[in-house]
Amino acid sequence: MALAVHLSSSPLLTSKADEKYANVKWDELGFALVPTDYMYVAKCKQGESFSKGEIVPYGDFLISPCAGILNYGQGLFEGLKAYRTEDGRITLFRPDQNAIRMQTGADRTCMTPPSLDQFVEAVMQTVLANNKWVPPPGKGALYIRPLLIGTGAVLGVASAPEYTFLIYTSPVGNYHKASSGLNLIVDHKHRRAHSGGTGGVKSCTNYSPVVKSLIEAKSSGFSDVLFLDAATGKNIEEVSTCNIFILKGNIVSTPPTSGTILPGITRKSISELARDIGYQVQERDVSVDELLEAEEVFCTGTAMVVKAVETVTFHDKKIKYKTGEKALSTKLHLILTNIQMGVVEDKKGWMVVVE
Amino acid sequence: MALAVHLSSSPLLTSKADEKYANVKWDELGFALVPTDYMYVAKCKQGESFSKGEIVPYGDFLISPCAGILNYGQGLFEGLKAYRTEDGRITLFRPDQNAIRMQTGADRTCMTPPSLDQFVEAVMQTVLANNKWVPPPGKGALYIRPLLIGTGAVLGVASAPEYTFLIYTSPVGNYHKASSGLNLIVDHKHRRAHSGGTGGVKSCTNYSPVVKSLIEAKSSGFSDVLFLDAATGKNIEEVSTCNIFILKGNIVSTPPTSGTILPGITRKSISELARDIGYQVQERDVSVDELLEAEEVFCTGTAMVVKAVETVTFHDKKIKYKTGEKALSTKLHLILTNIQMGVVEDKKGWMVVVE
Repeated sequence: MALAVHLSSSPLLTSKADEKYANVKWDELGFALVPTDYMYVAKCKQGESFSKGEIVPYGDFLISPCAGILNYGQGLFEGLKAYRTEDGRITLFRPDQNAIRMQTGADRTCMTPPSLDQFVEAVMQTVLANNKWVPPPGKGALYIRPLLIGTGAVLGVASAPEYTFLIYTSPVGNYHKASSGLNLIVDHKHRRAHSGGTGGVKSCTNYSPVVKSLIEAKSSGFSDVLFLDAATGKNIEEVSTCNIFILKGNIVSTPPTSGTILPGITRKSISELARDIGYQVQERDVSVDELLEAEEVFCTGTAMVVKAVETVTFHDKKIKYKTGEKALSTKLHLILTNIQMGVVEDKKGWMVVVE
Repeated sequence: MALAVHLSSSPLLTSKADEKYANVKWDELGFALVPTDYMYVAKCKQGESFSKGEIVPYGDFLISPCAGILNYGQGLFEGLKAYRTEDGRITLFRPDQNAIRMQTGADRTCMTPPSLDQFVEAVMQTVLANNKWVPPPGKGALYIRPLLIGTGAVLGVASAPEYTFLIYTSPVGNYHKASSGLNLIVDHKHRRAHSGGTGGVKSCTNYSPVVKSLIEAKSSGFSDVLFLDAATGKNIEEVSTCNIFILKGNIVSTPPTSGTILPGITRKSISELARDIGYQVQERDVSVDELLEAEEVFCTGTAMVVKAVETVTFHDKKIKYKTGEKALSTKLHLILTNIQMGVVEDKKGWMVVVE
C-alpha cells in the first residue's frame, strides 16, 4: 500500500520512528482529541469521481472561506474504531457499514461519496499509518473519523463544486465517565430531527443543534439528553449521540429508522446479538409511557458501544432502571466487545483485519 | 481605522492600487463568488471575548480537521449589502440587525458572538478595504458574508473551544435570473425546519438540507422551493433562501417568526413599508389554501430584495399571480431599493454610511 508521504519523515510527526507505541498515557484516555501522525485526504469535483487519496501529516489544512461546509453545513461524518487484539492484529468493526451510510448521506446532501472500496481502503491506510496510536489490547481503541465535506466555494445556496473526503484518528477510552450508567433527561423544548429533514443520515447539521440541550443537561448533572419526536412529542427518538433501547420482559424495543434517527451500526449489531440470545427485538415507535415502565434502558453507539441507562428524568419523575452485572446491557456489551477485541471468534464476519 | 495589513501590499491582491474600481464586468454580475482583496478575521476562545480582528488578504485559511464547524455544523452566517450611491458614498442597510441576529443565533448554537459594535465596525472595515469592489451605482451591490464558526478542535459532540468571526465579500447582481417573477414549487417530501430546531436562526444547518429539493426543483424548471411546516404540512413557511408574503385585498400576510422561519431583515423592513403605504400586515400562520387564493405572492431576502412570484405549483395545480408594474411587490421593491441606493431620503434611519 503506497503512502503519499514517507512515514516518519515529517517534522509534524509527534511519535518517533522506532517506537511500537506512541507516547500516550493509555490508562488516562477519555474521548478527547489526541492528534496522531497522519490523515487521509482525497478530493472530488462535482460530477466527477474521487481522486486516489493521499496520506499526509495530520494538521490544519487550507479551506476557502466560501466553502459549502462553512457557509451551508454541507458535511457528513462517520465514526468507527480500530482495535488491537491480544494476538497483535489490528481490526476494524464493520467498516463497510460506515461506507454505505456515507453513501446514503451523500445522496441526501448532494455530494459525491467515495466508493465502498475506496472508503474501506482509505480507513485502512489511515489506521496503518497511525498504527502506533492504536491502544494496547483492553486500553481503548483508535477512533476513526471520516469526513465528507463541501470544500468548493459556493456563494448562493447550492451544492459545492468540490468535495473533500478526509479521515483523521484519535486514540480514545470511554465516551462517558459515568461507570454505573447514564442519567438522561428528556428534553421538552428542543427536538433533534423532523420527518423530511436530515435526521436519518450522519449529517453535521444534526449535531450542533443539540449542543445547547446537552450543555444545559450536563450543567444540571445529567449525562445526556433524550429527544422526543418532532411530530408528536410522544415518542422517544434518540440520545444526542447514540440510539436507545428499552427492555420489558423478553422484548427489546427501539425506535425505527424512518428518517428521523440515525441508523446506528452498533444499534443494528446489538439488535442481532439480542435476537441471537433469545430476545424478541422490535423496531417500532416507542412511547414515553413505555420508557417509563421499562425494566431496563440502554444506549448504543460507536463511541460508547453499549451503555446502561441508570435513570431517566421526565418532568418531575426520575425513573431508575436495572444496571449492573445481571443487566441485559452488560451481557450485550460483553458479547459485542468480545467480538470486537478478538476475545471470541467472530462468527458474524464483522471484523476486518487491517493489513 | 487601523488595518492590520498595508492595503495593496499583498501579492494575493487581485486589483491594482491606483484603480477606483476593480476589473469587473459590472453588467454581467450574477450571484456567484467574485473574490475580492481582503477579508476580516477575529478569534475568540470559549468563555472569553473576541479579539480585535484583522483585515488580511482574502484567501484560503488554515483549519483543524477536528473543528466544530467541519464535524458538527457549528456555524452561523449573515448576509448584507453595501451600496454605492450616486453622490459617491458607500452605505450599508441595517447592519445592526444582522449583528443582533448573529447574537441570537450564537446563543442557540452555543458560541460567543462579537458585540454589536464589533460586528458593525468589522463589516465597515471589510467594505472599506474592498471599496473598489462596490459596484457603480445601479450595477449591483457588494454582498457581505459574515461567518461565526466553531474552529476549535472538538472530538465529542460539544461546543468548540474556539470560534472564528470571518467576513468576506463579493460584488453581486441579481440572485435569480428570472425577470418577470419566480416559479415556485411546493415541496411535499422535505421540510426545512421544525419547532425546537434551529430554523429561526441563520445556522448553516438549515441550508444544506434544502439543497436536494432545490436541485430537483431547478431540474424541473422551477426557480425555487416553497417549504411547508413540519408539524402539520398545511401552512407555508419559507422558500429555501427567502421569506414569503401573500396579498389579498388590502391584507399582506406572512408566516410568523415563531422558531421555524428566518426572521428576515428585508421581511421586517418590507412589512413596515407596506404598512406605511396603507396595507394591513399580518404575521400569522398562512395556509396553503390561502396561498392558492392569493392575488399576489412575493419573496423577500437580502440577496433578492423583493421578488414577485409568478407561479406556484402545488401537486397538479399551477397558480398564476399578478406581477409587473402594477403589482405591490414592484412598488415595494422600488420603495426599498430607492432607500438603499440613496435615491430618496432615508427617513427610517436604516442606512449607515461607511467611513
